[in-house]
Amino acid sequence: MIQVVKIGGNVIDDAAALERFLTKFAALEGPKMLIHGGGKLATRLSAQLGIETQMIDGRRVTDRDTLDVVTMVYAGLVNKQIVARLGALGCKAIGLSGADANVIPAVRRAPKPIDYGYVGDIVTERMNVPFLASLVEQGIVPVFCAITHDEQGSLLNSNADSVASAAAVAASKIQPTNLIFCLEKNGVLTDVNDDLSVIPTITRESFATLRADGTVNKGMLPKIEGAFRAIDGGVHCVVIKHADNLDNSLETKIVNG
Amino acid sequence: MIQVVKIGGNVIDDAAALERFLTKFAALEGPKMLIHGGGKLATRLSAQLGIETQMIDGRRVTDRDTLDVVTMVYAGLVNKQIVARLGALGCKAIGLSGADANVIPAVRRAPKPIDYGYVGDIVTERMNVPFLASLVEQGIVPVFCAITHDEQGSLLNSNADSVASAAAVAASKIQPTNLIFCLEKNGVLTDVNDDLSVIPTITRESFATLRADGTVNKGMLPKIEGAFRAIDGGVHCVVIKHADNLDNSLETKIVNG
Repeated sequence: MIQVVKIGGNVIDDAAALERFLTKFAALEGPKMLIHGGGKLATRLSAQLGIETQMIDGRRVTDRDTLDVVTMVYAGLVNKQIVARLGALGCKAIGLSGADANVIPAVRRAPKPIDYGYVGDIVTERMNVPFLASLVEQGIVPVFCAITHDEQGSLLNSNADSVASAAAVAASKIQPTNLIFCLEKNGVLTDVNDDLSVIPTITRESFATLRADGTVNKGMLPKIEGAFRAIDGGVHCVVIKHADNLDNSLETKIVNG
Repeated sequence: MIQVVKIGGNVIDDAAALERFLTKFAALEGPKMLIHGGGKLATRLSAQLGIETQMIDGRRVTDRDTLDVVTMVYAGLVNKQIVARLGALGCKAIGLSGADANVIPAVRRAPKPIDYGYVGDIVTERMNVPFLASLVEQGIVPVFCAITHDEQGSLLNSNADSVASAAAVAASKIQPTNLIFCLEKNGVLTDVNDDLSVIPTITRESFATLRADGTVNKGMLPKIEGAFRAIDGGVHCVVIKHADNLDNSLETKIVNG
């Protein structure tokens, strides 16, 4: 069983939380992969360089200068710091952008209706699965940032959740794979004011009910829809949990059925 | 035969020269590796961020902030742009820092007599040769920046010529290997004013003469001494040539004997 774990910018931005997480991630047994978001550093670096940050629907508009900044921060600083730290924790990791070994090809998003610039949508079916299989076989842990490329020489900025789903779908061609999204919540809650009201399991059937009665709404809806797409792509189950709970079972498990 | 090619900052800083070089490098047949220097971008970015650049004997003093800058520029921007461009040229490349798959362990240089900060000297005998062998076997071309790590969680700034020599020594444990240093000269010249006065071959014996009569001096001396150390480490021969001449034999070959 391969465990594909995604952490967001909130963990990257909090040195103590990142250290707690990496310690637990390094201790996970069996094959695994890590996908990391970028955090606020790219925005901060852009500001220092006088590059305006423009977000539309939570997605960074990526002009040429911004692409350079996110490549430096995500593929350079954040990725290599995580890889070096994991190495110190006894976990032999390798940092990857989608351009490396052509592991994640993408296509630049059409400029209409909204021109996001150098933003790429992943071509999951063209991912380099044999290369990932060779890493798994060697006990090397891939650490992905969300920079991909168009196979024509341009890097592209992709969504880290999408990279995680694509990596899990690719991994599931090697071995049965679970995809674990670490959020700032313990899972999908029945009561947003009660951190312990975690729904242990969501099936397609129960999701229909939870959506209809409004228990699941807003930001959680696309995450669960994405989870079922990953399951359709071959992923065994998708887990939503807090990064601090990587070593226990306080979580929501999204399963086929 | 594995060809390990090193380009310096002068090629990185010149977009047209880099494109010419990468086109020729992509066309080289057989297994190969690339090592790139950093160029002036790190100094420029440091200046933009208000970080003072201090050089001692041509080596960058690397404090914590400078380490972040060189990690962003070398391991992030420059490395990934080269990898993406090589991919477009049909050469499946993978960008590596020394931390990735623990491929180049290093030790931080002692702070005396000069404290260079986060600067690392490579531990060549501990390089991850099996991982490099697996890349060669898969036809994947490693592209190294000169960022290494101390295996205890810290990235380190290393000398790109040293990374190239170490990579070639490691490669020579897989297959016979040539190490090619691309400079701004056609090779070692008998007359600095005549670009075509290239010495085709240098042996240990002829080097002693060239050094004694002053033909080889200054910056070229440590390069040739380093070349003989690489040969002592198992490299078949070391070539010094211009990046534009990668596809022809205008070069100086340094060989055992």
